[in-house]
Amino acid sequence: MAMKKFINDPATLTKELLEGMVLANSDIVELVNGNLVVSKTLKDANRVTVVTLGGTGHEPAISGFVGDGMLDISVAGDVFAAPNPQVVIDAIKLADKGHGVLLLVLNHAGDMLTGNMVMKQVEKEGLNVRKVVTQEDISNAPRSNSDDRRGLAGAIPLYHIAAVAAKEGKTLDEVAAIAQKYADNMATIAVAARCATHPATGASFGDLGEVDMEIGMGQHGEGGGGRQPLKTAKETIEIMANALVKDIPLKSGDKAFVMINGSGATTLMEQFILYKDCVHYLEGLGIKVVANMVGEILTVQEQAGFQLNLAKWDDEVLARWNTPAYTIAFRRK
Amino acid sequence: MAMKKFINDPATLTKELLEGMVLANSDIVELVNGNLVVSKTLKDANRVTVVTLGGTGHEPAISGFVGDGMLDISVAGDVFAAPNPQVVIDAIKLADKGHGVLLLVLNHAGDMLTGNMVMKQVEKEGLNVRKVVTQEDISNAPRSNSDDRRGLAGAIPLYHIAAVAAKEGKTLDEVAAIAQKYADNMATIAVAARCATHPATGASFGDLGEVDMEIGMGQHGEGGGGRQPLKTAKETIEIMANALVKDIPLKSGDKAFVMINGSGATTLMEQFILYKDCVHYLEGLGIKVVANMVGEILTVQEQAGFQLNLAKWDDEVLARWNTPAYTIAFRRK
Repeated sequence: MAMKKFINDPATLTKELLEGMVLANSDIVELVNGNLVVSKTLKDANRVTVVTLGGTGHEPAISGFVGDGMLDISVAGDVFAAPNPQVVIDAIKLADKGHGVLLLVLNHAGDMLTGNMVMKQVEKEGLNVRKVVTQEDISNAPRSNSDDRRGLAGAIPLYHIAAVAAKEGKTLDEVAAIAQKYADNMATIAVAARCATHPATGASFGDLGEVDMEIGMGQHGEGGGGRQPLKTAKETIEIMANALVKDIPLKSGDKAFVMINGSGATTLMEQFILYKDCVHYLEGLGIKVVANMVGEILTVQEQAGFQLNLAKWDDEVLARWNTPAYTIAFRRK
Repeated sequence: MAMKKFINDPATLTKELLEGMVLANSDIVELVNGNLVVSKTLKDANRVTVVTLGGTGHEPAISGFVGDGMLDISVAGDVFAAPNPQVVIDAIKLADKGHGVLLLVLNHAGDMLTGNMVMKQVEKEGLNVRKVVTQEDISNAPRSNSDDRRGLAGAIPLYHIAAVAAKEGKTLDEVAAIAQKYADNMATIAVAARCATHPATGASFGDLGEVDMEIGMGQHGEGGGGRQPLKTAKETIEIMANALVKDIPLKSGDKAFVMINGSGATTLMEQFILYKDCVHYLEGLGIKVVANMVGEILTVQEQAGFQLNLAKWDDEVLARWNTPAYTIAFRRK
């Protein structure tokens, strides 16, 4: 499948994307030093602040979640590439309002390398920074070996929970503990039905043919070994939700959050059908769904498929969720 | 290209979709009689109310725009099909709070047939209803023959403007005049780079091969005669925006609204690049961009491409735009 994308120059994709994103949302964010997407609420913040880093190409993630009640700064790398550590250190210094900075990192090799180098340097400089890593993809390692688990879309609701805790006036240690607890109580699995192409190189992420889907596909086309003929929405959800319920674990009486994250070319029609099937499946197990996200949140270009993220929530998480947020791609009143 | 969608039964697509949509947004909407998506704010409304009708398969449109500051009721047909007139009449009776109902219809044969039959019947019954039709696709007829122009995504921002006018306490005639003025001052053109498949039949909407795009593609795959090799984002925007600017017309000193509506498989990365190129193009003509929508608004399943909608706005429209809305897919504070 040839690449057919409306772009100008593969070399300036990220620059042009960020320019457009900020131009379209100039009431919410501003662009600093070329690749820091900064919330306009940061200048008046007097609290712990929240920073993340990651490659572009997954829009609206990650920079689309900068704004009131979520991220203070997103440090954008190039397409599918981590930013360099010095830029992240600059962002942390810009974000720090005297209460410290929570640095959130999704577990991918490049992002982790940058994150670790940043942490060494900020310690040297005596900055007050805590790092929390999300690593919830159940397809490539068991929970006991979570350092090998990729970070998928489950990080996005965590941004809101951590930011709300910060707005409550919690200390950096408290905000980091809340974020870590959230990360420890969720899990994600992805499925792909048709692969995407890399917008800079035009290379395909794989070929699933005309019949198959692959359960366990990572967000850059990394395979998970679950290639099988495409099933119905309900059957696919049952396979995926069952695996997540066991992993977290969720049991009868628990409260759950459900995210259907469209990876690019899967319609919202399908996503709502999948959501409904997931709610019915969980209800059948006695698990109550108390909140959700359905839509394109962390995409893989024009890949057809979705990520299913489940999280075990308590009343404290739910109360934080039900507070305002106003970002490019996530808004609650 | 085989159909690879996460669905269950082609016969129950709309029913399952609406169930999921309402389940995921039960704070905003409720489902009445199977296919009326009704705003939870309707019960306390004491004003003109706004109703629309249309087929599913274009999510988030149309039902995703029900909620505070937009639609009161969306009457959902089956996939790409208009609902029957009696259901729309039921919706109008449910919506009418004693101030009359504005019925918004996009110009497509089936929707118009239903809309016209509804108007005949409501007149007979003495109901207070005004119908406004959006018909802004410049690709298939000149402005002088606008009855032949299809209604595309330009209807969506109109929902907000009309609903805000209603909330201001305007009469039905006044709200209808505001909606008609909005409809008269906007234009849309679509481009497709890769066609979608019908989710119920599996039939393809066309084949644009590995090289071509088609400018003027309608939202069910209707061709517009503008097939040509894919160009850069900037070149594509210049062709499309130039045609819209001439049609509306927009001239130096005017204020404009810009919508980039992704049709399904075009990434948000591309959409932000296109938006930036469009702003620069219009600025070069002395036209000031005062508001925007960028994202998947009215989709064509997994079609790759986008609709560009431009509208000439005055300060009154801008003031109405900058008021709160809280729907499934459109939220402003």
